[in-house]
Amino acid sequence: MATYVPPVRQNSPYLPFGDKQDAPFYGKDILSVKQFNRENLEYIFDVAHEMEVMVCRVGSFDLLKGKILANLFYEPSTRTSSSFTAAMERLGGSVIPINEVRYSSVSKGESLPDTVRTLESYADVIVLRHPETGSAALAAKYARKPVINAGDGIGEHPTQALLDLFTIREELGQVDGLTVTMLGDLKYGRTVHSLARLLTLYDVRLNYVSPDILRMPPEIIAEIAATGTPQAEYTGLEAVLPETDVLYVTRVQKERFSDPQEYEQVKDAYVITPETMRMAKERMILMHPLPRVGEISMEVDDDPRAAYFRQMEYGLYTRMALLAAVLGKA
Amino acid sequence: MATYVPPVRQNSPYLPFGDKQDAPFYGKDILSVKQFNRENLEYIFDVAHEMEVMVCRVGSFDLLKGKILANLFYEPSTRTSSSFTAAMERLGGSVIPINEVRYSSVSKGESLPDTVRTLESYADVIVLRHPETGSAALAAKYARKPVINAGDGIGEHPTQALLDLFTIREELGQVDGLTVTMLGDLKYGRTVHSLARLLTLYDVRLNYVSPDILRMPPEIIAEIAATGTPQAEYTGLEAVLPETDVLYVTRVQKERFSDPQEYEQVKDAYVITPETMRMAKERMILMHPLPRVGEISMEVDDDPRAAYFRQMEYGLYTRMALLAAVLGKA
Amino acid sequence: MATYVPPVRQNSPYLPFGDKQDAPFYGKDILSVKQFNRENLEYIFDVAHEMEVMVCRVGSFDLLKGKILANLFYEPSTRTSSSFTAAMERLGGSVIPINEVRYSSVSKGESLPDTVRTLESYADVIVLRHPETGSAALAAKYARKPVINAGDGIGEHPTQALLDLFTIREELGQVDGLTVTMLGDLKYGRTVHSLARLLTLYDVRLNYVSPDILRMPPEIIAEIAATGTPQAEYTGLEAVLPETDVLYVTRVQKERFSDPQEYEQVKDAYVITPETMRMAKERMILMHPLPRVGEISMEVDDDPRAAYFRQMEYGLYTRMALLAAVLGKA
Repeated sequence: MATYVPPVRQNSPYLPFGDKQDAPFYGKDILSVKQFNRENLEYIFDVAHEMEVMVCRVGSFDLLKGKILANLFYEPSTRTSSSFTAAMERLGGSVIPINEVRYSSVSKGESLPDTVRTLESYADVIVLRHPETGSAALAAKYARKPVINAGDGIGEHPTQALLDLFTIREELGQVDGLTVTMLGDLKYGRTVHSLARLLTLYDVRLNYVSPDILRMPPEIIAEIAATGTPQAEYTGLEAVLPETDVLYVTRVQKERFSDPQEYEQVKDAYVITPETMRMAKERMILMHPLPRVGEISMEVDDDPRAAYFRQMEYGLYTRMALLAAVLGKA
Repeated sequence: MATYVPPVRQNSPYLPFGDKQDAPFYGKDILSVKQFNRENLEYIFDVAHEMEVMVCRVGSFDLLKGKILANLFYEPSTRTSSSFTAAMERLGGSVIPINEVRYSSVSKGESLPDTVRTLESYADVIVLRHPETGSAALAAKYARKPVINAGDGIGEHPTQALLDLFTIREELGQVDGLTVTMLGDLKYGRTVHSLARLLTLYDVRLNYVSPDILRMPPEIIAEIAATGTPQAEYTGLEAVLPETDVLYVTRVQKERFSDPQEYEQVKDAYVITPETMRMAKERMILMHPLPRVGEISMEVDDDPRAAYFRQMEYGLYTRMALLAAVLGKA
Repeated sequence: MATYVPPVRQNSPYLPFGDKQDAPFYGKDILSVKQFNRENLEYIFDVAHEMEVMVCRVGSFDLLKGKILANLFYEPSTRTSSSFTAAMERLGGSVIPINEVRYSSVSKGESLPDTVRTLESYADVIVLRHPETGSAALAAKYARKPVINAGDGIGEHPTQALLDLFTIREELGQVDGLTVTMLGDLKYGRTVHSLARLLTLYDVRLNYVSPDILRMPPEIIAEIAATGTPQAEYTGLEAVLPETDVLYVTRVQKERFSDPQEYEQVKDAYVITPETMRMAKERMILMHPLPRVGEISMEVDDDPRAAYFRQMEYGLYTRMALLAAVLGKA
């Protein structure tokens, strides 16, 4: 029997070429907001701010020229998918769009680890959206290339939380000292859970305003409490709006209510109108992860405090920063 | 209450950089053929001709490098979608392909204005295909970036009409003095309606050949008549074919007839065969917006007068011209 | 009647610009493994090896900058589609992704020749996946631009066979002198049929191991026999594994068996586990076209002889080589 002579290489064919290998997130996965502390958050936000400046000046530039993103969406999310696509393209990179997973052989019984190991043969970084919690961690366990979690079920959606925080920083200049009020469905909204966790890294005050059946889950409240961040729950917005610096609105879905009458009773209390905004500070911002379906009246859109469309732009810069960081080019 | 200090900027982050801001279509939407007069049509066609020359010489070039097109298709149209994608790519730009709208959160209740305002956060120009008439105008009303209508229901499909006219100009050298015969379903074909409107800007003669139940609508005929353009209706092609310079064929769909026998009676009269072409001028062109399903026999394809595949190429150049124009690079 | 003056040009607008017009595959279609002899196989593999070296060094490069691939998939195949997309992007080219054919007007009655002639108006090369045998040849007959067959039903999937052979060459240094054992469903697997055909160009020994109802078809065996290549059939792996240099595993699908009990009896005999690998040579490789659904235990993945994920990478290099070759840039 012949002595085994190993093939030329076992590892990635894409040897790093000019990558900053000592950069904080080089080669890392972005799976959870729990990976972030104040220091590396500031690093990402500084890079995101540079991205903003560059996009304002030149639109696009070739920082990631020649790099390829596999944009792997097991469930459709036009907003997130488009945002990552644009982020890669504005950095001069290319995208493999994979949106048809439901019809594909990939979905016909192939395991997520196999799919991911196939795609990393072609690409330099993988963005994954998947309906099952823990999918991103599973993918990252098997992948040699960086995996960015673009939402895994009721699990995490870390890039959303990062862009929310970046929006606050850019719009209001700083995060310390702010009062952030979260409104709507605080029970099922993974967006507000992740954002609340991230905000505990700063010196903020949190208010939760929701119908009784959609209150912030006790385990999140306990987690926040353990950090010493002051928090308080309300059922109405009136009491806290005048002192609010950031009003973060989420959708109250009819399907969450077993009793339709109960829904009818509360729904209007959680719709933001020009009248609502009259009670708000002059210098504050109104945020929403979008899509909205009536939670904020379109009449509010022209209010300079309405930051939800600018929030989408900040999402672009945040994702540009993350892609550049994990690929060693930040 | 603190004095309100506005965020750094309210408007688009993509400041024009080297754009020709005084160019005729810079920053404009392309919504309807009604926007065009003879002068700005000639401007677009001159640019389209330059595009043709450049593509023939070098295939692609970097006029729109760094620019991003959001290709937003609410209904599938492989031909139009591919044409805009290729146009952007041959100009060195990038594309965000959005074809899965039906499954996406975008379609789950989000309004078109919100979707468009999200996408313009990522892209520089939006191409929109939508099944509802007026969608493109609605999108353009809310968007700060240029919107190009790629068909909105039975409304308009202006880039199709422009490429049809450009095809005539390129193939026959000029439009003035030509006799254009439209054949087939003239009632429901938005293509022929738009083309007829555009042709009134030139000195042409229009013939309409159709089954009785698929005649050109009276309101279009009235509109054309008001411009002084001579027009005439026929049920058979024989009378007008010998004097026709452009024969524009559209599909007669069986579904339009309530009586199947009526369909059987007329359908063969509207199929172009080599025999038909024997009665046509030596110097004329045969056009079709495609897809064809039997209206033109495949045996005609090798006839040099069969211009329908070249028409697709002219579509590429026309869309390159429009993208360059609205982005200030024409 | 006016003398006919032909339009400016009848042919492709994309005049070759700096193309190596005397290169072996310039402007050619890639339809079948039957096009290949040992000489032009070696040419493609030498180019593929150069691609591997370049990707290792620089990731991507601009060999096909400005060229456009129409990636036309009438049935979904994420793996093949992504592989061609990445191949084009790593060469600096662009892609028109066309995955939604089922919903599109393209599928509503338009003939394949018309679709292909439309797409070649936009693109420089067409990759076609289609469920019907002979589709690629039909498309190539009408297209003026190169067509690459990415699988047409139970017909051919030549790029898969080429990448399989390239994998063997790269992993084991040469093909001559090897014993190649094919395992599993050898009746319906077009992959093993094409690979067996290609291997007859080399000095190899072929073993076929399968359940009785999934044996290699007699016509393939006859075809191989005519080349003088030694071959032998088995129902169990034990006898041939110790002398095997390449073990090529394919999936045994339950649906192929009319009697479920028969399936239950044989299925475990065709699953590769660490125990199986203990009987294999130290220097050999285990291949699989993927997706796998249990035919190879995940515990085998870390065995250095498990080559199936590297096989995906070799697929990328092979497709880069083919694209460069047909576009005259190899």
